[in-house]
Amino acid sequence: MTDPRSGGDSLPEAARESRARSPVPPLSPLRVAVSGARGRVGREIVAALEADPGFECVAAADVDDDLGAALSGASAQVLVDFSVPTAAAGNALTAIGQRVRPVVGTTGIGDAAVTTLRGRCEAAGLGGGVIPNFALGAALLMWLAELCAGHFESCEIIESHHPTKLDAPSGTALRTAERLLEARRGRPFRHPDPRTETLPGTRGGSLGGAGVHSLRLDGPVADQTVIFGAAGQTLSLEHRTTSRTAFVPGVLAAVRAVVATERFYTSLEEVLGLPPAASLGRAMASSEAP
Amino acid sequence: MTDPRSGGDSLPEAARESRARSPVPPLSPLRVAVSGARGRVGREIVAALEADPGFECVAAADVDDDLGAALSGASAQVLVDFSVPTAAAGNALTAIGQRVRPVVGTTGIGDAAVTTLRGRCEAAGLGGGVIPNFALGAALLMWLAELCAGHFESCEIIESHHPTKLDAPSGTALRTAERLLEARRGRPFRHPDPRTETLPGTRGGSLGGAGVHSLRLDGPVADQTVIFGAAGQTLSLEHRTTSRTAFVPGVLAAVRAVVATERFYTSLEEVLGLPPAASLGRAMASSEAP
Amino acid sequence: MTDPRSGGDSLPEAARESRARSPVPPLSPLRVAVSGARGRVGREIVAALEADPGFECVAAADVDDDLGAALSGASAQVLVDFSVPTAAAGNALTAIGQRVRPVVGTTGIGDAAVTTLRGRCEAAGLGGGVIPNFALGAALLMWLAELCAGHFESCEIIESHHPTKLDAPSGTALRTAERLLEARRGRPFRHPDPRTETLPGTRGGSLGGAGVHSLRLDGPVADQTVIFGAAGQTLSLEHRTTSRTAFVPGVLAAVRAVVATERFYTSLEEVLGLPPAASLGRAMASSEAP
Amino acid sequence: MTDPRSGGDSLPEAARESRARSPVPPLSPLRVAVSGARGRVGREIVAALEADPGFECVAAADVDDDLGAALSGASAQVLVDFSVPTAAAGNALTAIGQRVRPVVGTTGIGDAAVTTLRGRCEAAGLGGGVIPNFALGAALLMWLAELCAGHFESCEIIESHHPTKLDAPSGTALRTAERLLEARRGRPFRHPDPRTETLPGTRGGSLGGAGVHSLRLDGPVADQTVIFGAAGQTLSLEHRTTSRTAFVPGVLAAVRAVVATERFYTSLEEVLGLPPAASLGRAMASSEAP
Repeated sequence: MTDPRSGGDSLPEAARESRARSPVPPLSPLRVAVSGARGRVGREIVAALEADPGFECVAAADVDDDLGAALSGASAQVLVDFSVPTAAAGNALTAIGQRVRPVVGTTGIGDAAVTTLRGRCEAAGLGGGVIPNFALGAALLMWLAELCAGHFESCEIIESHHPTKLDAPSGTALRTAERLLEARRGRPFRHPDPRTETLPGTRGGSLGGAGVHSLRLDGPVADQTVIFGAAGQTLSLEHRTTSRTAFVPGVLAAVRAVVATERFYTSLEEVLGLPPAASLGRAMASSEAP
Repeated sequence: MTDPRSGGDSLPEAARESRARSPVPPLSPLRVAVSGARGRVGREIVAALEADPGFECVAAADVDDDLGAALSGASAQVLVDFSVPTAAAGNALTAIGQRVRPVVGTTGIGDAAVTTLRGRCEAAGLGGGVIPNFALGAALLMWLAELCAGHFESCEIIESHHPTKLDAPSGTALRTAERLLEARRGRPFRHPDPRTETLPGTRGGSLGGAGVHSLRLDGPVADQTVIFGAAGQTLSLEHRTTSRTAFVPGVLAAVRAVVATERFYTSLEEVLGLPPAASLGRAMASSEAP
Repeated sequence: MTDPRSGGDSLPEAARESRARSPVPPLSPLRVAVSGARGRVGREIVAALEADPGFECVAAADVDDDLGAALSGASAQVLVDFSVPTAAAGNALTAIGQRVRPVVGTTGIGDAAVTTLRGRCEAAGLGGGVIPNFALGAALLMWLAELCAGHFESCEIIESHHPTKLDAPSGTALRTAERLLEARRGRPFRHPDPRTETLPGTRGGSLGGAGVHSLRLDGPVADQTVIFGAAGQTLSLEHRTTSRTAFVPGVLAAVRAVVATERFYTSLEEVLGLPPAASLGRAMASSEAP
Repeated sequence: MTDPRSGGDSLPEAARESRARSPVPPLSPLRVAVSGARGRVGREIVAALEADPGFECVAAADVDDDLGAALSGASAQVLVDFSVPTAAAGNALTAIGQRVRPVVGTTGIGDAAVTTLRGRCEAAGLGGGVIPNFALGAALLMWLAELCAGHFESCEIIESHHPTKLDAPSGTALRTAERLLEARRGRPFRHPDPRTETLPGTRGGSLGGAGVHSLRLDGPVADQTVIFGAAGQTLSLEHRTTSRTAFVPGVLAAVRAVVATERFYTSLEEVLGLPPAASLGRAMASSEAP
């Protein structure tokens, strides 16, 4: 008997293994519907689904369309919603009603709606998710940096954005510095201040000894580098964004995950299966003195 | 009875936690002896031990010295050996005989000697290790790259060394590519070949679709970059070596580890507590289709 | 008689100096018309002119519009043409007939048309230009690399493009390598081949000893790095493209130049005033033995 | 008849051209003496001369040696002095007395001594030089950055040094920012300040709108990057130091230059033949509005 929770993944282990090793795409692409399909993000999602042989875009609806009708008969496995805050939860409930797993990327739907959607998905035995940030490389970079945090005593973070960005540092840079310190259980990095300062301010910001430097210039979209230093070496992790399509891989990963696991996700980290650095044990947290 | 020389390891958990949070060094530095102390590497080890308040160099012996006499009365907790293949195992056994944990960095001592040393350490209830490569950043870079391998379909590796290096690619680059493929269970990266080639060979080498490019030029010591690409973004991991002291942090981490855990280590990855990517579960191995 | 439309160029030297030092934009923005205004490039040009206080977009025409009528009364100083090869030369002649300087970016108009346009501009005492490539950073990078070519004996070029690019290396990388060799009067760089090759091809391509490496991965738009090596150091020049608007600064520079100098330009290098490396004298060409 | 000004370069133009094109070293290596030969720098100079087939180290003297005797009969063409301030000028005069061109790298000899040495060299028809900084890549980087300064409206400078450096920013970073502004005749770069600052100081220092960021971490020796931004692109110039031998190429270039030209040099820029950006004309200084 087929486990009903395994959705499209009813292949026996051996066959899955064989498919994993194969360069050809799976025979049956995942069937995906999109709501908010004519919005800036929605258009990119539709284009990406059509370009990837692992997916099929079986329905595309926007604000004036009847989503229920669009889903009906489309045999969608997942609905991706990038609509508007007032419509997103309703779209997701419509999907669940037709046994379609919702993946909501629309921000600002509120905690109550997330709780409701989680409950409805679980009751229906369906995967789903409400995920506020789909930037694959940013999520990975922060996680990798956490994993390194205990092994180095010097750290500098550089982020680059266009000149019209109003805040400094970027939210990602600040969050990165915070997570580095959490991974070190608060133990600060070494952050020497200059004895002689021939131009004020060049040492930048510091959070727990992690230097933070914000560049604002024409050219970059959204870049971040974390540089760790130790005797005779540096280890640098750098995420560069070159296009607004940078959220696409995260969305596709979430679509795969909700079908494969029938779980409910609230962050891209969960989708990607990135275990918190703290869970990886004491040794991970530090190569320093106990 | 608690060995009085084991220093910080006999502290109760709460006290250790408090010290971990403290920016001041532990009260009792680790007491370390060095054999091969006048060799190129040994000299750097001695200098590093003297510069770091967490350590004390209590004995330094070289080929013509009587190591047993040097250790006697020195109350060393660890012997670091960077001598010669013919002397290293004997030095380690001398250390164990005086209840000093051996950390052997000398290469070429043979598998039989490693087995013997492991047995003798375990019988004595002492930590120890034989570790052929102490490059902290290189070990971390390979591990981080493994963790990323399943999340990207494009990968290019660039390594840079001085012009007199005789082999290409570097052993580290080749091993990195192999480990990336293992982490993907053999699923190759996308590696498009050019339709028109206006200069032969510019696409470099390829192992399972991971491009490998070897730069040979004056200036670099030993650098490696792994670049992953996805829609609208790249994630790059870069290790740069600026000095032959790059092995120092790995040696110091091993010294701490053998005292703290009384285990026997055969790789820097174990010392650093880097769990194999495969052990982190299916989700870690891939954000791709099953 | 001074042409009243020539704006800032009729100011006395002192006034120009004062304006050059001033952070405020010139009082009279340059008046620019655009043909091909609804094409992919044309739209970006119009947007850039409107965003920059130094310019005013006074006419925007496309294939079905009457360019002569659009220019009439618009008092344009320059026509920027990004239309189609069959229309571009005619558009430029229409502009000259109304004493408007043509800047043609449309490629493929043929050498004869360039000669004709140059002659007509010169006869009318007007600046103008036909410029096939407006990538500011690429032009500067090649020129800077030429200036360095004689001072280093090691050189490696890395270019990165998206996976669907059909040729390798990029035309810019090949042209860069050629120009480096010209600047060295054919003297090759040192390019050691490996004695042991554990993966074939990793040393990449070579033109006169300049290594050339082509990366093809999702993420990058069009990047190039030239790395020079010498004892104990590297000097790297890197151009990164993050958007198709990268041609805009070159177009704006050409618009300024044709008004300021009333010369006729056939390359961005001329517009930018980048003297050929060879013209900067023997010393520039080499710090090596004669 | 041999032109007396051409020194060791008495080959006719055709022969020189042929040698310039040839990959083999010149038949007669330049004959060089070193004073301060056992100092930290002097030892590296001696080693570099011995490793390069274009040079021969014909004498090596240190503080207790009789330099005059060492030079006598050595047929040295050039004396390289890295001794001490109190001895350097005397060493140089001894060299001139034996018709050996002095290249003084010892710092702190005073302006009067420089004037004396220049006069004595000119009177003797000999080349020579007193050059306080031989860092090839740093000199080139500053010059290239000057050449770019007028073509971009965004600029950020990042310099990285080891944690024990006492001043920030580095002297080179400050000088670079000053020269960028001089090349722009004081016209500042755009340097937006954040409206919201979630961590103070991350925008770093600013000189005329060029951002300056100082990183202090284990690993780097002395690195500097200048990043210029424009629409859709960045152009980055990066100098990395990996060893204290980084001064060697500059010294060798100076040795060649004093023989080839019989001029007297007071900066590496002159030796390298880097014309001041201002001398390259108005167009070079700016692609911006006049």
